[in-house]
Amino acid sequence: MQKSVSIAAMTLSLSIAGAAVAEQLSPEEQILTRQAGYSFISWNMGKIKANLEGEFSQQQVAAAANAIAGIASSGMGALYGPGTDKDIGDVKTRVKPALFTERQQVGELAGNFVQAANMMAEAASMAESAQDVKGAFMDLGESCKACHKEFRKD
Amino acid sequence: MQKSVSIAAMTLSLSIAGAAVAEQLSPEEQILTRQAGYSFISWNMGKIKANLEGEFSQQQVAAAANAIAGIASSGMGALYGPGTDKDIGDVKTRVKPALFTERQQVGELAGNFVQAANMMAEAASMAESAQDVKGAFMDLGESCKACHKEFRKD
Repeated sequence: MQKSVSIAAMTLSLSIAGAAVAEQLSPEEQILTRQAGYSFISWNMGKIKANLEGEFSQQQVAAAANAIAGIASSGMGALYGPGTDKDIGDVKTRVKPALFTERQQVGELAGNFVQAANMMAEAASMAESAQDVKGAFMDLGESCKACHKEFRKD
Repeated sequence: MQKSVSIAAMTLSLSIAGAAVAEQLSPEEQILTRQAGYSFISWNMGKIKANLEGEFSQQQVAAAANAIAGIASSGMGALYGPGTDKDIGDVKTRVKPALFTERQQVGELAGNFVQAANMMAEAASMAESAQDVKGAFMDLGESCKACHKEFRKD
């Protein structure tokens, strides 16, 4: 797991490193790929939630948290290239145009998300009970919501 | 990173642990969620390929490999529940019916995939050049293809 001190730097450098690669994906593909990432995250968030509300399997929570952290840390900023700020035919997006102009705020929220995802994975790797991950899971959920609130249409 | 010796056991137990959770997703959602996982894997495979053919960024390759390993190890077997063996309205699937009957072969191929994904992530975490991950990346690609050949329609 990345140490949290290096996450901001990592996020930034990944965004830059990812820029060249994003050019290989069409705007439609970028939208679909970022939605795929969030869908897969959502499934894994649901699994963790079910574990916290029901029987706790450390193995399942850790696996779900690793998937989320891996996706969050993969440089998704590269999937918000030019032309991906609005629907393209049947490919719909709920992103608000402000995401493409409020770079500093977006960078902070994205950095918080990556950090929260990595802290959740770290907590899950050592968890003996649901109690050991509840705080990290709540922080992770808040980091998702913070970005949705600002930059995702209802 | 999981040690490879424990991966087969982990895969099996995750499949079992995931069964209860899958019941919360409709068959349509299961198909879409597994496709989301593979789409996100595909994007990250493409990034690694671009790094091996062009300029090599260890940071980007490691991040992509971690995303792939996280998704692969998340218990995707739970997304192949009853009713997900064929198209459901607009939700199309390329899975062959044999995937739902050839359990032993599927388990072996899935285990190989999870193991190859984790070995790629391990190799990427220490790589100093493209040469250091080429073998692991080839093995990972082969593990994808082995399952596509048997259980995915063209």
